[in-house]
Amino acid sequence: MSDERIWTAGLVVIGDEILSGRTQDRNVAQIAAWLNVQGIRLAEVRIVPDVTAAIVEAVDTLRARNDYLFTTGGIGPTHDDITVDAIAAALGVGVVHHPGALATLERYYESRGGLTEARKRMARVPEGADLIENRMSGAPGIRIGNVLIMAGVPHITAGMLDMLTGTLEGGRPVVSRTLGCWVAESEVAELLDTVEKAHDGVQIGSYPFFREGRVGANFVVRSPDSALVDMTIADLAGQLEAQGRAVVVDGI
Amino acid sequence: MSDERIWTAGLVVIGDEILSGRTQDRNVAQIAAWLNVQGIRLAEVRIVPDVTAAIVEAVDTLRARNDYLFTTGGIGPTHDDITVDAIAAALGVGVVHHPGALATLERYYESRGGLTEARKRMARVPEGADLIENRMSGAPGIRIGNVLIMAGVPHITAGMLDMLTGTLEGGRPVVSRTLGCWVAESEVAELLDTVEKAHDGVQIGSYPFFREGRVGANFVVRSPDSALVDMTIADLAGQLEAQGRAVVVDGI
Repeated sequence: MSDERIWTAGLVVIGDEILSGRTQDRNVAQIAAWLNVQGIRLAEVRIVPDVTAAIVEAVDTLRARNDYLFTTGGIGPTHDDITVDAIAAALGVGVVHHPGALATLERYYESRGGLTEARKRMARVPEGADLIENRMSGAPGIRIGNVLIMAGVPHITAGMLDMLTGTLEGGRPVVSRTLGCWVAESEVAELLDTVEKAHDGVQIGSYPFFREGRVGANFVVRSPDSALVDMTIADLAGQLEAQGRAVVVDGI
Repeated sequence: MSDERIWTAGLVVIGDEILSGRTQDRNVAQIAAWLNVQGIRLAEVRIVPDVTAAIVEAVDTLRARNDYLFTTGGIGPTHDDITVDAIAAALGVGVVHHPGALATLERYYESRGGLTEARKRMARVPEGADLIENRMSGAPGIRIGNVLIMAGVPHITAGMLDMLTGTLEGGRPVVSRTLGCWVAESEVAELLDTVEKAHDGVQIGSYPFFREGRVGANFVVRSPDSALVDMTIADLAGQLEAQGRAVVVDGI
């Protein structure tokens, strides 16, 4: 193993609608994939209800043990949007109206009925915060210290991630390559273990599936060292083929 | 508020494939919806990597503070399937081969190449555990104390949930009803807050969307008391209509 620095992020998904099963979360996968490209590993996710104490606990724990902490959800104008207050409480700072956010909201709502008190709620930020531009709708994202506060609606979060691209320090991106095989993973369990151990610094994940009436599996090799990934894939393919098994490059 | 007992569950999703963004999780929504019907509230989810210490920490915390703890993932035959060992460590018990699981696996693999050492791994359980039948494939789920260990593949987990239906004690199921309205949620934020406060024991969630070129929102009213939900929905509909807004029963 190299002693290369690994950059990590935690993510707190805030929302009763995810915990009730009403809404299928899309932000975990989207933020994870984006972080990979930045060279940052998503280390842990917590999904918590719209309850201040639950948000504070999760934010406090995950921001302390990661380089970055993302949150999604709860930054709208309604009574159940308590993310900003909870994060301010976790950070021990007050809540203020951000002048830049007020100006943005004023422009956005100029042709949409004006900036009401409820809408002004969306300009509230923890004291000392910067904004993350939201090109999709009025309410901006928020950045304070290592905490990045994003929208709950996935396409709005996607726009905020675009704005953040290249602004967070990370390490080498993790490279992954996949090999598929129409085999029950239990038949090659030992082989996978042996290949992983022979290539220090890679992880091999095994993802079985049942499709078209047959069992198969995809084997995903991951490492920040792309040469090592290629070498491991070649070794794995060679050993599977030596057993008379056909492999499918880039997975099934 | 009544002092009705609320039954809760935690869920630990185990798997690098979710944290890498490779796989879109489906188990959170599926387990949440199933729990609702059992009268159990999903209180928190943690998504952790295939790392023993991370699994142990999440399991320890969530099983202590909830009536039930579910896990998904990591119970297959390969080297990255470490859930059983991690949970046994969290519970301070050993790992044994369950005779019933061995018998099931033997039958399942009789026509599939036999029960190899790798496949026997799937019969390993924390000492003292019972099995949860898996009608989809060989490896059973596991139940020990208040911990329920489920598969990672969603349709296999679905089958295990079917087997568990009616076996977990819960409270009254939470009832939810939805009202849709083509309105920016910021225009009715105060109204929502007022209606929620007027009906003690309900929660109103506001879920905005942008569709067909227009903004709208769904308002979800939740409570274990269905009469209270109906009354709140009627009140909310009446107040929105009094403002001249059309409401869509059961949401948009």
